Amino acid sequence: MDKFVIGLDYGSDSARAVLINAATGETLATAVRYYPRWKEGKYCNPAINQYRQHPKDYVEVLEATVREVLGAVSSEVAANVVGIAFDTTGSTPCFIDEQGTPLALREEFAENPNAMFVLWKDHTAVREADEINALCRRWETDYSAYEGGIYSSEWLWAKALHVLREDEAVRGAAYSVVEHCEWMPALLTGRTAPRAIVRSRCAEGHKAMWHAKWGGLPSEEFLTTLDPLLAGLRGRMFETTETAEKPVGHLTEEWARRLGLSTDVVVAGGAFDCHMGAVGAGVKPYSWVRIIGTSTCDIMVVEPEVIGEKLIPGICGQVDGSVIPGLVGLEAGQSAFGDIYAWLRRVLEFPLKAILGDRLTPEELEKACDRILPALTAEAEKIPVGESGVVAVDWMNGRRTPDANQMLRGAIAGITLGTTAPMLYRALVEATAFGSKAIMERLRREGVRIDRCIGIGGIALKSPFVMQVMSDVLGIPISVCESDQACALGAAIFAAVAAGLYPSIEAAQQAMSSRCAMEYKPDPTNHARYEELYAKYLDLGRYCESC
Amino acid sequence: MDKFVIGLDYGSDSARAVLINAATGETLATAVRYYPRWKEGKYCNPAINQYRQHPKDYVEVLEATVREVLGAVSSEVAANVVGIAFDTTGSTPCFIDEQGTPLALREEFAENPNAMFVLWKDHTAVREADEINALCRRWETDYSAYEGGIYSSEWLWAKALHVLREDEAVRGAAYSVVEHCEWMPALLTGRTAPRAIVRSRCAEGHKAMWHAKWGGLPSEEFLTTLDPLLAGLRGRMFETTETAEKPVGHLTEEWARRLGLSTDVVVAGGAFDCHMGAVGAGVKPYSWVRIIGTSTCDIMVVEPEVIGEKLIPGICGQVDGSVIPGLVGLEAGQSAFGDIYAWLRRVLEFPLKAILGDRLTPEELEKACDRILPALTAEAEKIPVGESGVVAVDWMNGRRTPDANQMLRGAIAGITLGTTAPMLYRALVEATAFGSKAIMERLRREGVRIDRCIGIGGIALKSPFVMQVMSDVLGIPISVCESDQACALGAAIFAAVAAGLYPSIEAAQQAMSSRCAMEYKPDPTNHARYEELYAKYLDLGRYCESC
Repeated sequence: MDKFVIGLDYGSDSARAVLINAATGETLATAVRYYPRWKEGKYCNPAINQYRQHPKDYVEVLEATVREVLGAVSSEVAANVVGIAFDTTGSTPCFIDEQGTPLALREEFAENPNAMFVLWKDHTAVREADEINALCRRWETDYSAYEGGIYSSEWLWAKALHVLREDEAVRGAAYSVVEHCEWMPALLTGRTAPRAIVRSRCAEGHKAMWHAKWGGLPSEEFLTTLDPLLAGLRGRMFETTETAEKPVGHLTEEWARRLGLSTDVVVAGGAFDCHMGAVGAGVKPYSWVRIIGTSTCDIMVVEPEVIGEKLIPGICGQVDGSVIPGLVGLEAGQSAFGDIYAWLRRVLEFPLKAILGDRLTPEELEKACDRILPALTAEAEKIPVGESGVVAVDWMNGRRTPDANQMLRGAIAGITLGTTAPMLYRALVEATAFGSKAIMERLRREGVRIDRCIGIGGIALKSPFVMQVMSDVLGIPISVCESDQACALGAAIFAAVAAGLYPSIEAAQQAMSSRCAMEYKPDPTNHARYEELYAKYLDLGRYCESC
Repeated sequence: MDKFVIGLDYGSDSARAVLINAATGETLATAVRYYPRWKEGKYCNPAINQYRQHPKDYVEVLEATVREVLGAVSSEVAANVVGIAFDTTGSTPCFIDEQGTPLALREEFAENPNAMFVLWKDHTAVREADEINALCRRWETDYSAYEGGIYSSEWLWAKALHVLREDEAVRGAAYSVVEHCEWMPALLTGRTAPRAIVRSRCAEGHKAMWHAKWGGLPSEEFLTTLDPLLAGLRGRMFETTETAEKPVGHLTEEWARRLGLSTDVVVAGGAFDCHMGAVGAGVKPYSWVRIIGTSTCDIMVVEPEVIGEKLIPGICGQVDGSVIPGLVGLEAGQSAFGDIYAWLRRVLEFPLKAILGDRLTPEELEKACDRILPALTAEAEKIPVGESGVVAVDWMNGRRTPDANQMLRGAIAGITLGTTAPMLYRALVEATAFGSKAIMERLRREGVRIDRCIGIGGIALKSPFVMQVMSDVLGIPISVCESDQACALGAAIFAAVAAGLYPSIEAAQQAMSSRCAMEYKPDPTNHARYEELYAKYLDLGRYCESC
């Protein structure tokens, strides 16, 4: 009998469990659940970019999805599940008490957003991030060095400090702080004592300025200079971090019962979704894996001897073992990708909603709006490269990499009276591809060899026009991952290694990672034309940076 | 009994006649006719920007409109019409034979576009304009100096040379060349012998490099250096030009009969539409008259002692007497104004047409499209100045002034994922106002005092939002002309002076020019905010110029 593993992928709005044959990578069952409280909009305030998630949401969808996938397979298969692993969004930290319980699970904090997980996209800690960056600049050690040199409001220390400043009650009860991807394995294995929680190399290395070079987290002196409120927290957190293929432990009796699994099941360490997704997609040196959706998350792995002591400026971080043990994981990304097409769609929805809103039923209106991007695509595909003269910059949601700057805005130039909606759309598609090229150029400039791109996610699977433009712009082939659950598949690969079925992530990838659904090859003529247009993109970008 | 005059305004698509009481300026009747051949799209080729008009179109609408206005009034009124005057678009030149007949009126050229009037917006002579500019730069006299220093493909010499080069048959028959506004009075008075045609100071001064300083047209040597094909043409044209209030003559018997008027009727000289429009709107020193439609044409008059020998760079010309005798007429303009709003409308029509095109009848579709700009306006008005952060440059159709450059394109910057269609619209409205401000700043920099603006045309009368933004941006009050036929009214004022009813244009304006329908006053708070946004407009403009 083959052995089976369960990968659990916690996204922004929902979580999914996949039950995978560890010998082949075949998916036997998939289950998806939306977070119930989150779906109601609870604990969030978009006006101030506050996005919090209740730990109960995480627990409820865990039980529901695992039970569903187990229910969909034979009892023999269910009995042969040997490992389980989690990937989550991040940085998504939460304060815990001395017992390791997220504060929101205590009655007195049950409805307090500051006692919950602070979702990656929560931007309430902008001021704190600024202070961290200012202090890093003048401190003898630049603790942000392995995180691209710019600390973000989306990351652990900024969020933790913001909550401590804002909420006296939470401050009184907060003993330590934990990332979502660390808490899930801790919960299931019972290793919840704060100092016993297995810490994620991926999460802490990319988002909490943990690095072996300076002995772990930033020094107590640095943290208390930032704010005396942080005094002592570092000592109550941890010294070391682990790569995610290491077992955290086995399911507790309670969790084995709740999930319908045995206490023999091994729980692997946790990591961020895009990092495990890259593994699911077959990441290896020279392959650039891109999770392409509303935004992109870009992952590469580089041999330590190639990168050496070099710091790559302006990316989201470089952490030894954050993706695959023994390799340095690089993270980058675009703040907006599909979101930019959605922006044009919203602009073009205006006449439908403002003028025909009372003539169409809500369903008809939604259907009409859903047809905007396909209609634009059909026309935009026909426009030869460079013909319209329109050029755009893709910073409508700021710029994540290269060189993070959330204050930047997007632009469209080269407009004439003959510029059509499909020309604008084509320019936006090209702009997102140019934004991708800017990341590739930065990595290459710093000596990172890139031979091919692997695309994962909704846009990679569903938008051939966008993918072909990207391949033409980048000048490299792009393989698209067959699996639409590459992150959960990646988690399953970690579960398989943690359970001892494979000696290494690479060996498990060989057997289990996703096949390639299709490949886009760059057209040399278009690529040459895009080289010229890319120079115009950079020009327009310089203008946007200067204003 | 009061005396009456007829003003004839020949626009791009149609001509209109107004019958005016010369004592009061009151309009007794108006008639409008579209050019019949033009309306069918004959003799034009938009793909190469070729726009030609048949002289028969001009003649047919003349008879129809004049007969219609005369038919609308009592026979006493009709019998007391004493003067008639024309304004036309320009530069709109045509080759004539030795008898002064436009070649297209001869049977062998009846269907030849090169034998017709070359409408102002015809851009077939781009190469010839480049050659003229290059020669002006290296010639001892810069003949383009009084035309802003840049000769346009829309003007007489470029067009004449282009036709001579392109069409051997026309070249063989072409004796001289005439502007549309000169040919109409010549035709009606019988003064059609080429050297006897009364030449328009406005047309020849603004578009043919005629200037008293160098003894008229550019020298024979200049013209033959430009192209030997031009040899002798100068000598068959003219030496002097006249301001338009001077009588050209009386109606011939034939034309008196055809129009239903007496041979006592005086025909005034002709001029361009916006110049006579400015007179109709009450132009005087320190008042900046703007004809605001798809594009703008801007007219000012300055005392010769104020402007002296100064050349104002980058405007469309400065010609003594081109608007009012004794004053220097200045012309400027924006290549696109309402056309820019129409551009956004067309972009937003995309989902209506591409998605609902088969669900709505053509009438419903048109009605829905017609509602786009009003719906945008309703929302855009609510957005506080500067709040959206979106800034645009209005060069979607190139830039006419300041500093003509038809190769420039428009741009929109400061876009975020939260930018809405009304925000884009507001930014475009602001951009057109900033383009207006750039003209005003150039004039002021060169010592031209501007106290107020007078708006004429569709947008001035119908778009309070656009006009208020313009007043706020400019920081000066804008009066809107009550008359929706200010150009024809201006022609009527010239007819009244030519007929001897007034001693001067100023005296006739006092009695006849249009009243003010309303006035927009700048809001000081908004004006201060717009000063900051204007700096951003100039920044974005510098980018557009550099790329």
